[in-house]
Parts: sequence; structure tokens; C-alpha cells
Amino acid sequence: MRATVMHKAHDVRIETIPDAAIQHPADAIIRITRACICGSDLWPYNDLQPNGAPDGRRMGHEAIGIVEAVGAEVHTIRPGQLVIMPFAYSDGTCMFCDEGLNTSCVHGGFFGVGGEAGGAQAEALRIPQADGTLYPLSVGEDDALMPSLLTLSDVMGTGHHAAITARVKPGHKVAVIGDGAVGLCGVIAAKRLGAEQIIIMGRHADRIALAKDFGATDVVSARGDEAVEQIRQLTQGFGVHAVLECVGSEPAIAAALGIVRPGGAIGRVGVPHYGSVDLSGTLFYQNVTIGGGPAPVRAYIDELLPDIMDGRIEPGKVFDRTVRLDEVPDGYRAMNDRESLKVLVRP
Amino acid sequence: MRATVMHKAHDVRIETIPDAAIQHPADAIIRITRACICGSDLWPYNDLQPNGAPDGRRMGHEAIGIVEAVGAEVHTIRPGQLVIMPFAYSDGTCMFCDEGLNTSCVHGGFFGVGGEAGGAQAEALRIPQADGTLYPLSVGEDDALMPSLLTLSDVMGTGHHAAITARVKPGHKVAVIGDGAVGLCGVIAAKRLGAEQIIIMGRHADRIALAKDFGATDVVSARGDEAVEQIRQLTQGFGVHAVLECVGSEPAIAAALGIVRPGGAIGRVGVPHYGSVDLSGTLFYQNVTIGGGPAPVRAYIDELLPDIMDGRIEPGKVFDRTVRLDEVPDGYRAMNDRESLKVLVRP
Repeated sequence: MRATVMHKAHDVRIETIPDAAIQHPADAIIRITRACICGSDLWPYNDLQPNGAPDGRRMGHEAIGIVEAVGAEVHTIRPGQLVIMPFAYSDGTCMFCDEGLNTSCVHGGFFGVGGEAGGAQAEALRIPQADGTLYPLSVGEDDALMPSLLTLSDVMGTGHHAAITARVKPGHKVAVIGDGAVGLCGVIAAKRLGAEQIIIMGRHADRIALAKDFGATDVVSARGDEAVEQIRQLTQGFGVHAVLECVGSEPAIAAALGIVRPGGAIGRVGVPHYGSVDLSGTLFYQNVTIGGGPAPVRAYIDELLPDIMDGRIEPGKVFDRTVRLDEVPDGYRAMNDRESLKVLVRP
Repeated sequence: MRATVMHKAHDVRIETIPDAAIQHPADAIIRITRACICGSDLWPYNDLQPNGAPDGRRMGHEAIGIVEAVGAEVHTIRPGQLVIMPFAYSDGTCMFCDEGLNTSCVHGGFFGVGGEAGGAQAEALRIPQADGTLYPLSVGEDDALMPSLLTLSDVMGTGHHAAITARVKPGHKVAVIGDGAVGLCGVIAAKRLGAEQIIIMGRHADRIALAKDFGATDVVSARGDEAVEQIRQLTQGFGVHAVLECVGSEPAIAAALGIVRPGGAIGRVGVPHYGSVDLSGTLFYQNVTIGGGPAPVRAYIDELLPDIMDGRIEPGKVFDRTVRLDEVPDGYRAMNDRESLKVLVRP
């Protein structure tokens, strides 16, 4: 079967690899009907060392697919079902899954990061812990809602996680750092949770337009201290109750710390590419909370799915290009060049 | 009047200073009936530079007293009332006070830190923002509950804040770092909030005994990696849901990070004497939340007072020595030498 393999920075290839096959009794095999390229895939696209993945890294962690086969210990998932594949697999029964933190499942792991599990930018994929991982859908595989449903495998759930860990409440002033797909879904999530003011920080006209469509009330396109200053001006000098940090860079976390209000919270979902943060100063004296991490998107589907099915939210609008598997390398290039916001893949 | 003045490390004196007097219309003057020495007073006791406070620093931020006079704009507090004085003053009306974050009051500040407000280890004290700051009591000034009521001015409210920001819930496994008065009150708070397992980290036999009396179920007296290992063993290898970090030292925050469970939270109330913390690793991947800061104890009195009045909690047991004002310098020495846990002052 064909799959996307990254060998080093800027070297993404579509290769023929062994067919996905059941390895453990809890596995399922899905034929991928929709996948996509994630902003987080751009980190290795820019910095993966040649020796960082001897046989290359199989890419992709977001998908919808049709179940083709299940192992002997798979009891609820059945062949033929259309399913959402969250970016992390999880058994659905351990204490962490029980608490809704599937990304810390004691039998869990992540797709598309070079680990034991493969990648979803492929024709098919083995799904460990199929019963706990996969979420069956009741629509057809080419339903018009497919782009929005696909976002439940990562970006919509991740934006929601940023909003939840930033403790967005009705009436809150919220800032969203990053106008990528996760940031834009963070805008949707903040609005959904009742935020009164939603400030999007970004500088791409098309993304800003989409952010406004999703519910952003203000735009700050400046950077660094100037951005902090502008957000303080927009919030009577106090800063925002909730910061959704959807980038993970050093300037992004610095901005988050600069714009959060006393008693406020930072929900961070951007994979951290910063190191230490000074926790001794205003962060302490102003009772600021820092939370977040990899979003347990599996646990959020129950809550978010009805809003998509009923058309109340349309996160699928973040996709602005659709490619076939062969075109995935160019999809990476397009996203990296900021020519595309988010690329949908139809293998 | 006489008051406690710290000139430099280990140099605490009882001096005659100008009588406390109304300076602003929102002020009140209280005659101090009970005050105490705080663990946080030991930081300057050990490191205050001679030039750090040209005229000395007036010490003390916890008190109960009788209102002697009020300014023209004080409307609810009246002379003759017995009142709790929280360690921070606050107007009680701004948006932060409204949200229960009195320590970030836009007209607020702190007692006993060398700022505009004086210190409570004194015969009397001027209270800015008297209406918002002071909390009237309905008992006599020598009531047997006085020690416990006095803890509402800081340590009981601070232990509660640690538990709240560490998000202690019924059934939780909790670790309390520090067997000082705040840590011990943290044990009370964790038990009050329904924790199932409460591990006290400390090494003083008398304090450990008190922690057990307050509800601690386990004791870890080791330090560093060994302590982390022991706590993991006590929690099936996963760590605790909630860490109450009641010290503020570098080893304390390191321990907190080492023992918190995926999805868990650290509530920190020890004044940070550490700098940067690496937020890029397991802290992110395990979705750990860090919160806390100066406790808005004023906001917590409503909730905690009934438990003291009805005898359900007895935080006053943290006091193991009572001194007159003249003996305050020796009280500092005794606490610093770990000869006393917490010293009550009867001016």
C-alpha cells in the first residue's frame, strides 16, 4: 500500500510500504477515506534530521476511514463502519481514559510521530486499541460534513482543549494566539463556550477573515511587545481571562504571559518549542494558571459532534485545499509556504 | 505605639513608632488583639539586606483586632467591632474582588511587606479600604476559638487556596509539600474537600503528628528523588492528582513536578524562591496544570468560618507558642530554629 514517509526536513515521499495488517487482537485496520496535514507536521518538515528516522517517519495523525478488519479482541467496532480516528490511540477503559484524558492512556500512543503506530496520510492504517480509539459515525463516507467531522480527529478537539484548559466561561475576554487551523478552531470553541470578546492574533488576511466568520471580535496583527500593548488597550489595561496558546513557539508563550489577566488562565496546545518559563514573578503574584497539553480529542467528540451534525459550527472551513495522496508532498510545501491553511487528503 | 521593625536579616526590634492614624477616608484603625509570625516572614529574616529597608520594615500581616476609629468613607465597619484582618487589603468592590481575587484588587496591597501599609505585629494598625478588607466576627475578643479564627487571616485561607488551585476533589490522592503552618492547613483543606489519600511531605515529628491529626494518611520524610520515588510507590506509580506546594523553594517545586499525575494540578502558595521551570517536557505531554499565588483569603472566610465556629476544623492547633510584643524577636528566632511551628502574638 502507499503511504507518506518523511525522511528528513523538506523530504516527504509517497512510498509503497507493507500493507497494514492486524498485529494484536485489539487492532483494527481502516481504509483511509479522508486525512489531512497538520500544522504540527510542519515542525519535522522543517527540522527532522536525516538520522532522526532511519527508515523515514510515517506521517499523518488525523483521519476518517472505513473499518476493513478487526482483531479477535475487538468487540464494539465492526468492519464496514465509518469511523473518526483521533490522533492518539487509547484503550478507553483505563483510569485516565475514564477521566477523559485519553492522551495519557496506559496502553495508548500517538499516530504519525515515528513510534510503533503508523501514519494516516496513507491508503490504510493499523489502529491499536480499536474499541477505545475509533468513534463510529452515522453518515455516509462522502457526506458534505466530512471536512468538519475530520477536524474532530485533531484541530477542533485541540482548539476546544485550549479553551477548556484556559477555562473560558460566558462573558470572558479571550485571546487566541495563532491563526492556524487550531487557533481558528479555538475561536469556534471560545465562542461556543460563551466568550464575549475574542481577540485573534494573526497576520494572514484570509485566516483573519475566517476567524471573524467563526466569531472573533478583534484582530491584533502586531508582534511582541506591540501586540501585548494592543491587547491590553483592548481590555481596559487588564488583559484577558483566557489565552489559547495555539502555536508553541517562544514568542507565543511570551505573548501569552504578557496578555493574561490576574486570575486568568493560559491553555497551551501548541507543541512547546520553548524551554523554561519564569514562574517566580507576576505569574505567581497574579494567580495565573497554566494548563493544557495534547488534547484528549477522543473524549470531546461526544460534546462537539452534535454541533457539527446540526450545523452550529463549521470547523471544516479551515480546509482550503484538497489533494490526492500523490500530491501530499506538495501539500506540505503549500502549508509550509503559508499558501494553504490546511490541506485535506483524499487517498 | 510599639511595633515590630526588621532592619536586616536576624535583626528584629520592637520600636516606638508614630501612632496609627487615619490617612484616607476609607481607612480604619484597629487595636491588635492577636497577631502572629508567618513562615513567609522568615524569608526576610534570613535575607533582608541592610539597605533593603532604610527605616526598617514593619512586620506582620495576620491579625485580629478591635476597630478603634474609621474614616469618613467607611460605611459598614464600625468602631468596637472585632475583625479579622486578611494579609492583603482590598476594596471589596472592584472586578477582581467581585471574582474573589482580592489579592489583585485594583486599590489593594499587602501588609507587612515594607510597602505603604504597616505591619500587624504591633499595638495598632491602619487598615486601608476598611470596608472591603475587614471581616467582622460575632465572638468576644478572648474567645477560645481565637487561634483558629486568626488563621483565617492567612494560613488556613492559604492552605485552602493551595487545595483549590490544585483542584482537590472527592476521592483524590493529594500530596502536601511542606509541614509548616500552611502545609498543615493544606492537609485540613484537602480533607475538607474530600481527598481520599493525603500524603504529607515533612520531617519534623511534632508537625507530622499534627498533620495526621488533621487528616494526613501517609508520611514521606525523604527528600529529592527518593521522596518522589516513595510517593510514586504510594500511588501505584502514577503520582497524585493534586500537589499543594506550600514551601516555594527550588527543591519543593522540583518535587511537585516529579509527583504530579497526568492530568493533575499543582497549587503553589509558597512565595517562589525558584526561577524558571521547564514547561516543554512531561508537564506539557501529561497535561499538568500549574496554578496558585497569593491566596485571596478574604474571599474564603465565608466558606471556612462556619467550619471553625462549629468545631469541624481546628487550624489554630498550628500555634505552639504565644508571646507578648516584647518577645516577638525571640519568636522569630524560635520559628527560624524550628523550635516553634507558629508563634501567636498577644500585643
